[in-house]
Amino acid sequence: MCELLGMSANTPTDLCFSFTGLTQRGGNTGPHKDGWGVAFYDGKGVRQFHDPEPSATSPIAELVQNYPIKSKTAICHIRQANVGNISLANTHPFVRELWGRYWVFAHNGQLPSFTRIPGAYEPVGDTDSETIFCDIMNRVRADLPRDAMPAQLAQTLVGFAKEYASTGVFNCLLSNGDWLFTYCSTKLASITRRAPFGPAQLKDADVTVDFSAVTTPNDVVSIIATEPLTHHEKWDIYEPGEWKLWHSGEVILQGKN
Amino acid sequence: MCELLGMSANTPTDLCFSFTGLTQRGGNTGPHKDGWGVAFYDGKGVRQFHDPEPSATSPIAELVQNYPIKSKTAICHIRQANVGNISLANTHPFVRELWGRYWVFAHNGQLPSFTRIPGAYEPVGDTDSETIFCDIMNRVRADLPRDAMPAQLAQTLVGFAKEYASTGVFNCLLSNGDWLFTYCSTKLASITRRAPFGPAQLKDADVTVDFSAVTTPNDVVSIIATEPLTHHEKWDIYEPGEWKLWHSGEVILQGKN
Repeated sequence: MCELLGMSANTPTDLCFSFTGLTQRGGNTGPHKDGWGVAFYDGKGVRQFHDPEPSATSPIAELVQNYPIKSKTAICHIRQANVGNISLANTHPFVRELWGRYWVFAHNGQLPSFTRIPGAYEPVGDTDSETIFCDIMNRVRADLPRDAMPAQLAQTLVGFAKEYASTGVFNCLLSNGDWLFTYCSTKLASITRRAPFGPAQLKDADVTVDFSAVTTPNDVVSIIATEPLTHHEKWDIYEPGEWKLWHSGEVILQGKN
Repeated sequence: MCELLGMSANTPTDLCFSFTGLTQRGGNTGPHKDGWGVAFYDGKGVRQFHDPEPSATSPIAELVQNYPIKSKTAICHIRQANVGNISLANTHPFVRELWGRYWVFAHNGQLPSFTRIPGAYEPVGDTDSETIFCDIMNRVRADLPRDAMPAQLAQTLVGFAKEYASTGVFNCLLSNGDWLFTYCSTKLASITRRAPFGPAQLKDADVTVDFSAVTTPNDVVSIIATEPLTHHEKWDIYEPGEWKLWHSGEVILQGKN
């Protein structure tokens, strides 16, 4: 399996603290040593880092841990290979352009019986995850207007997610840089940090941060991860079938199927 | 204007030496301080680094200079903004997926009168370069079979390039990871290094490398750049209208229109 990490914030925020915790699980405190990747939106652009090396020892991961890249929406993934060998092409998150925006996707789970339906978006690697992402992109392009409102978008995405989840495990993060869609098939958790900010301590590394020293009173920063990343903070645990659509650090739509 | 750098090699090779020279021109020895980017193919995957900061002072560029990322095909660009503001979305190289491969494009020049024809591939930023890349992708998808042979591919790409160059300046690098297409409208140079390898000295930084110490006798590594990057080596200067299709470090097709 793999681990997911997403961020939605109302102000450009770095992911160094959470990323440091997650990457320990890539070969150190966890077995997810078969590559890692992260995408940071900056306006409509996306800064991407992908590496088939274990995140716990990757020099590129070390840079991302220490160099504060600020973003309002980010998606990160560390991989334990199941379907598809260890290679750069199989490393999440995957990115495609649709309607003049980059769409970014990361997946945790397995859908062994999923069969690709031919379409304009095609997988480059050989993971079930990228194949499903291309299926989503082909269906979104066919089924939705480019100016779809959040409710219509969420309804469509939840429909797809429910269908995929019925044949396997489908926890996912998907964004076009404006919103962040999250769906829990088996395991996902979130936390929203806002004033008054306090300290937090990673579970996976001996690192503590005092968020009050690095934020303003108006900041709202939400982290979504496969499992809680910190001690002594209250994370919300998604239930199976639960989904949330995030925007600027807040849940703007949610539900459960 | 901007500067281009491409590499085609028959064995995975790092770009540290040439990249170090080029990035000096991004705010130090040259005025191309409005961002930079590089894409390294690894199999069918692509490792991308993009930064709207000047390459001469970017911590991410420093990592790419010092961490030997090996690739058989790479495309790099440093930007001096003309059309489109300084932003991540406007930073080359641009990437799109077609027929299950990532296509990567970087452009030097300006095509002020180019008007976008609607198609499935759309620009995310607001540069003429990305708009033209999307035009190429839309036309390649429409005009070529997915299994086009190099001669048919080159003929089609040269036709497009000639058309664009007739209305402005169009020096470009384009790859799908298998081949590297290069077109010179005004300025481009190349060098092919093979055994016996010797030393080389950058023009833009006090850096010398002895290629014989880092290669094997079978290595063939070609570098394509806007202007020669080294002293005391013979670079081939492209003529206006000249194009070359590279594969594994060698020119497999070339011509001039």
